[in-house]
Amino acid sequence: MSINKESEVRVLCSTVSRCEGRQVIIQGWVHGVRHLGQVAFVDVRDRSGIVQCVLEGEWLDLSLTLESVVAVHGRAVPAAKAATGIEIHADRVEVLNRAASPLPFDLNKKHLKVRLDTMLDHRVLSLRHRKAHSIFTIQSALAGAFRDYLTLHGFTQIFTPKIVASGTEGGSNLFPINYFEHTAYLAQSPQFYKQMMVGAGYERVFEIGPVYRAEEHNTSRHLNEYISLDAEVGFIRSEEELMDLEQELLKHMFDTVARQCENEFNLLEVEPLALTADIPRMTVAEAHRILERKYGKLSPKGDLDPEGERLLCQYVAENNRPGFVFLTRYPREIRPLYAMPAADEAALTASFDLLMGGLEITTGGQRIHELDQLVASIRSRGLNPEHFDSYLELFRYGMPPHGGFAIGLERLTSRLLGLGNVREASAFPRDRNRLTP
Amino acid sequence: MSINKESEVRVLCSTVSRCEGRQVIIQGWVHGVRHLGQVAFVDVRDRSGIVQCVLEGEWLDLSLTLESVVAVHGRAVPAAKAATGIEIHADRVEVLNRAASPLPFDLNKKHLKVRLDTMLDHRVLSLRHRKAHSIFTIQSALAGAFRDYLTLHGFTQIFTPKIVASGTEGGSNLFPINYFEHTAYLAQSPQFYKQMMVGAGYERVFEIGPVYRAEEHNTSRHLNEYISLDAEVGFIRSEEELMDLEQELLKHMFDTVARQCENEFNLLEVEPLALTADIPRMTVAEAHRILERKYGKLSPKGDLDPEGERLLCQYVAENNRPGFVFLTRYPREIRPLYAMPAADEAALTASFDLLMGGLEITTGGQRIHELDQLVASIRSRGLNPEHFDSYLELFRYGMPPHGGFAIGLERLTSRLLGLGNVREASAFPRDRNRLTP
Repeated sequence: MSINKESEVRVLCSTVSRCEGRQVIIQGWVHGVRHLGQVAFVDVRDRSGIVQCVLEGEWLDLSLTLESVVAVHGRAVPAAKAATGIEIHADRVEVLNRAASPLPFDLNKKHLKVRLDTMLDHRVLSLRHRKAHSIFTIQSALAGAFRDYLTLHGFTQIFTPKIVASGTEGGSNLFPINYFEHTAYLAQSPQFYKQMMVGAGYERVFEIGPVYRAEEHNTSRHLNEYISLDAEVGFIRSEEELMDLEQELLKHMFDTVARQCENEFNLLEVEPLALTADIPRMTVAEAHRILERKYGKLSPKGDLDPEGERLLCQYVAENNRPGFVFLTRYPREIRPLYAMPAADEAALTASFDLLMGGLEITTGGQRIHELDQLVASIRSRGLNPEHFDSYLELFRYGMPPHGGFAIGLERLTSRLLGLGNVREASAFPRDRNRLTP
Repeated sequence: MSINKESEVRVLCSTVSRCEGRQVIIQGWVHGVRHLGQVAFVDVRDRSGIVQCVLEGEWLDLSLTLESVVAVHGRAVPAAKAATGIEIHADRVEVLNRAASPLPFDLNKKHLKVRLDTMLDHRVLSLRHRKAHSIFTIQSALAGAFRDYLTLHGFTQIFTPKIVASGTEGGSNLFPINYFEHTAYLAQSPQFYKQMMVGAGYERVFEIGPVYRAEEHNTSRHLNEYISLDAEVGFIRSEEELMDLEQELLKHMFDTVARQCENEFNLLEVEPLALTADIPRMTVAEAHRILERKYGKLSPKGDLDPEGERLLCQYVAENNRPGFVFLTRYPREIRPLYAMPAADEAALTASFDLLMGGLEITTGGQRIHELDQLVASIRSRGLNPEHFDSYLELFRYGMPPHGGFAIGLERLTSRLLGLGNVREASAFPRDRNRLTP
């Protein structure tokens, strides 16, 4: 709120109701126009909400089009009929930018009724719809809460390269880059780098950054570029500590957005989540037994397929809406080369996934920290340790026991808000067919 | 601090001095070892600092190598001779990971005396040196302060794609990607996307993310991948507001790191900055006159070369260490197509750079928001507006006056800490010849 020369107060739409009787300026987009004889009621929308403005006389000649950008100067007056209980009687209207008419679709209806492709083709417009708008306000708050919680717990934010010499999780699913005279790749994850930063003495690190997967399938759960919320922790005793950490972290994130984004949850007609009970932890083998017993469902060896993930979350959702479950003890052959073998069974790993509402939102686990063990693991996969030279140096000169996890921000957002397609939780999604806008 | 079963307290090295007489555990790296007859003094380093441990009896047989990872259990005892006034009399030492010996270079000397290339080749080790370590603790705090300040001022954090269909600032300096059947590029900046998010109704947005410049020159000031701290603001009246914002933002960032990272500034032997006076603003033309009058230096048309930037900062540094200056009114031909022409002179722009300590750390300015003006600007550069379709839609349906700026995080860090090469402010720098680690 700032006061300009004419003692008008520049305010947000959401604060006009606190300015009764005062001369104010609001700036925003024309959300709706209704003509009633010699008066026009113009709803102006800004990032905070909507306020009704009453225009008379010469200002009716402006013929405001929907979505035009305006600054309305006027007095804030109580109005029983207005949704916010207040309206602005305009004495000056500046058109800062006139919108073309008609719009490709309606933005002032309760629901945005367009196909996903149309929504994404006209992304700047569709994001103005208050429901879509709310998604990314909540996403921003989620990322902020992730950072705040970890910072408070002694973590350092790191920034690691997305241009890498080779893949970390195996050689497939990489996007090649022409890097001067060389071929480089887009990083699939900051895995090696976050481990390096733990070993470089930061002990506890997090990163919020893009990762890239050249997966060819176009599904409602995959993006080729997404934001990974990564954490890595030194001096752990087991992967249980990591699940403890993630549970408390998610609890904080959900509580924070419930508090900060009440308005957005209302607009989306979604109940905020509160993680009140502990998230159950079960082995993949247990999950298989439950799926077979309850649903007659068979699973692929050592893993769950998408239907199994959905059913298992349905099974646990009674206690933990929309169904949270940590799956543990994945077999070595489907986990990466750096996964720590389980203490009591070398064919299994000290790793886990977190499912939420039918979708895997996290992969995590303890990592191997002994050089010899890691070299053996690389060899056992038919890979050449020499190709991992700069990574292996990490383990030569003192590496603590450590582990971590990564949360897919768009998947987390989509499960929190019950979105049908993860693309709705990406401002500008990238998939096999989409490179614009 | 957590208490385990044996009522030992797990503490950080920096907090041992508060645990006098108590049984503690510290975990970290062996920083130094001195044998004195039947006693060994072992300095253990963790992320918070160093503490001296006294080992006797069987524990001497461990023959601890430098940089091995240990957990030391023992009693915290006052010790006048120890640097922290306290030491730990060990009654148990666990070697969690033994480091190979010898190390490629010394880590426990006051200065890390290795060439830059050696430092970067062995990055995990060089980052353990307390000076190098401090750089990225401060960098993390800078990024956090950037986010906190803007969040408090109504900004939303955005995440925009780094895989793009074409360049924004013109077609050169792009890294091509093999994106399935297409060629895509790594984003040079989030410019178009941050403008889109302003126009999508968020009004004020920021992004902390990587950007890519395929510049072939290898200088001490260039990185091919760096972190850009971007901000974009709707409903501005002129670029002056943006410089006001950036000045206050930087003031907050410098104050925050001075407060949070006192220890790190001490280790680096660097005085924290405080932006007490306003940053001077001068036109490029004025800067040219000063450079010619004071230093007999001629400049390229409408711009400064690196020597000019250095000299000008030297000139203003008396009032504003290490020399801050906003340069304004750059000519259109050297600014991007979206730069708003100056209100009073169409050949100039409402744009600015911020120099700090001889280096450009920011480019910013007001942007064109009228569709016709933008199309004309695109045409005047011999480009085809049809290639900008998805960007231009932004301006068709109501775009407020707006502008923004971007701060290079590594350059800011390097100027704040007086580092000779911007690579020292990147954990894993990418340049023409370096893709690893």
